[in-house]
Amino acid sequence: MIVALAGGVGGAKLAQGLAAVVDDLTVIGNTADDFELYGLHISPDLDTVMYTLAGLANPVTGWGIADESWGFMAMLGRYGEEAWFRLGDRDLATHVLRTTRLRAGQPLTAVTQDLAAALGIKARLLPMCNQPVSTLVNTPDGWLGFQDYFVRRHHQDRVLEVSFSGIENADLTAEVDAALRQAEAIIFCPSNPIVSIGPVLAVVGMRELLVEVGQHVPIVAVSPIVGGKALKGPADEMLSSLGHERSALGVARLYTGLVRGMVIDHADAKLQPAIEALGMRVLVTQTVMGEADDRARLAGEVLNFTKGIRT
Amino acid sequence: MIVALAGGVGGAKLAQGLAAVVDDLTVIGNTADDFELYGLHISPDLDTVMYTLAGLANPVTGWGIADESWGFMAMLGRYGEEAWFRLGDRDLATHVLRTTRLRAGQPLTAVTQDLAAALGIKARLLPMCNQPVSTLVNTPDGWLGFQDYFVRRHHQDRVLEVSFSGIENADLTAEVDAALRQAEAIIFCPSNPIVSIGPVLAVVGMRELLVEVGQHVPIVAVSPIVGGKALKGPADEMLSSLGHERSALGVARLYTGLVRGMVIDHADAKLQPAIEALGMRVLVTQTVMGEADDRARLAGEVLNFTKGIRT
Repeated sequence: MIVALAGGVGGAKLAQGLAAVVDDLTVIGNTADDFELYGLHISPDLDTVMYTLAGLANPVTGWGIADESWGFMAMLGRYGEEAWFRLGDRDLATHVLRTTRLRAGQPLTAVTQDLAAALGIKARLLPMCNQPVSTLVNTPDGWLGFQDYFVRRHHQDRVLEVSFSGIENADLTAEVDAALRQAEAIIFCPSNPIVSIGPVLAVVGMRELLVEVGQHVPIVAVSPIVGGKALKGPADEMLSSLGHERSALGVARLYTGLVRGMVIDHADAKLQPAIEALGMRVLVTQTVMGEADDRARLAGEVLNFTKGIRT
Repeated sequence: MIVALAGGVGGAKLAQGLAAVVDDLTVIGNTADDFELYGLHISPDLDTVMYTLAGLANPVTGWGIADESWGFMAMLGRYGEEAWFRLGDRDLATHVLRTTRLRAGQPLTAVTQDLAAALGIKARLLPMCNQPVSTLVNTPDGWLGFQDYFVRRHHQDRVLEVSFSGIENADLTAEVDAALRQAEAIIFCPSNPIVSIGPVLAVVGMRELLVEVGQHVPIVAVSPIVGGKALKGPADEMLSSLGHERSALGVARLYTGLVRGMVIDHADAKLQPAIEALGMRVLVTQTVMGEADDRARLAGEVLNFTKGIRT
């Protein structure tokens, strides 16, 4: 079994590639950007992975559902509601069902597995935990909820500090624990190391388990920073403003002690010696993914890379 | 001020007609067919009146919103959900906002007035009460929730008994009380007398207030039964199976002691003497309503009729 840790769009793409080339895949998704809107529990990262694995994702935005309609939002507008977070009509079915089932007492893990199964997803999609965790970012304008920062304010604010509210109560689920213990390789997808992979690693017991499992199983990360820039989102700016190097090397440093190998882009080949100096193996390849075939190509290369890593 | 008591589609049409011909209109809507679906508070009768008054109603079905889209339902179907109650994408915005505001502690009266105002409705739309009331019908297959009977089972079951669960806790609201006390005329719209007007009349204190107010204000009803048939829905079958006459006379008998006048269709002109024998005045006219102009025409005739009634 292969286990992938994933955040949003980039993570979802590699997860899709992995699903195409491995039979037994578990994806552990970030839920620290979950939030409630109009009484609905929304899990943006989980849904991006789920829709992508189901082949439903909007190919242009990377998030949301292809051929979505917007009647709900149009009517909300008639009611005079501010609509900075766009909820598509089809997407809404996910939020409504998830919310109903959570309110009925089902844990998020079970709800997520049911929804993913109904969409025909073969991979196991697991939230990082069942407890609510909320990413907050401190900015020159004060602390902001993650979606407020990310969507409403278009991640324009300088991030001075990041906090995962509730993380102290977030336990490893039995399903995440079992998946990691059964893993033959663990892959950190090209997701934001601070606010996508960061919360997953901050779940109580997660880092210790990864260190333990990592003694006999290869753990590798794919850099979300290429040529000093994030392919999508604010990972580059966030690394800088938080005092890290805005590069694949900066990402590698954050993962020191956890990962044995980094996958970086040709554009960053010159960083290979510095990353190797951290005690990591390096695979230099094309990390920018195109459509499904290209995602499977990168997934295959990453898997091969894990096989060459001595543990 | 004119006050109308209304249930679903027929009531909404006359309410729209009244709104066109009177400046100050209050519509008191049935909420005993309200129910919860996917955690959403749905008020089918209130919404039918609201959408009709806002000029948004689907002209074909009479309920729901014109030019509705169905992405939410399509996606629910992909999740394997049974979908007997159809929630349109635009319609869903109403349910989501209403539910959020009720959960935040706003009474249904305030929520309804806010939603109606946002849609540009000039008339005052009031739910019959703020407390939850649920119509239940007893059938040869046992007791059924109203929407189960009405929508899922297409009102095919023989109704042996009707009950309004929770009605003993349903109080007259200050708004309904004030509207009725200020009314110059009160009109029972052509709605099902058992399950649309019936629950409104069953609110604690309503019947007594109507009797009191009716001593100096004309109260008239428009028959929803024409030529022994309900124009829409199961009112005719329900009257029969509950032991009433399936006619405008049967409706008039149910309203004895409350209304001073009945408006019946030309098709039922022969019932005039029997209804007059109940001590009511009778207006015979065309009660089957076409589009907006025709609704205003009937509304005008009904208003004139109330003016001729001695109180």
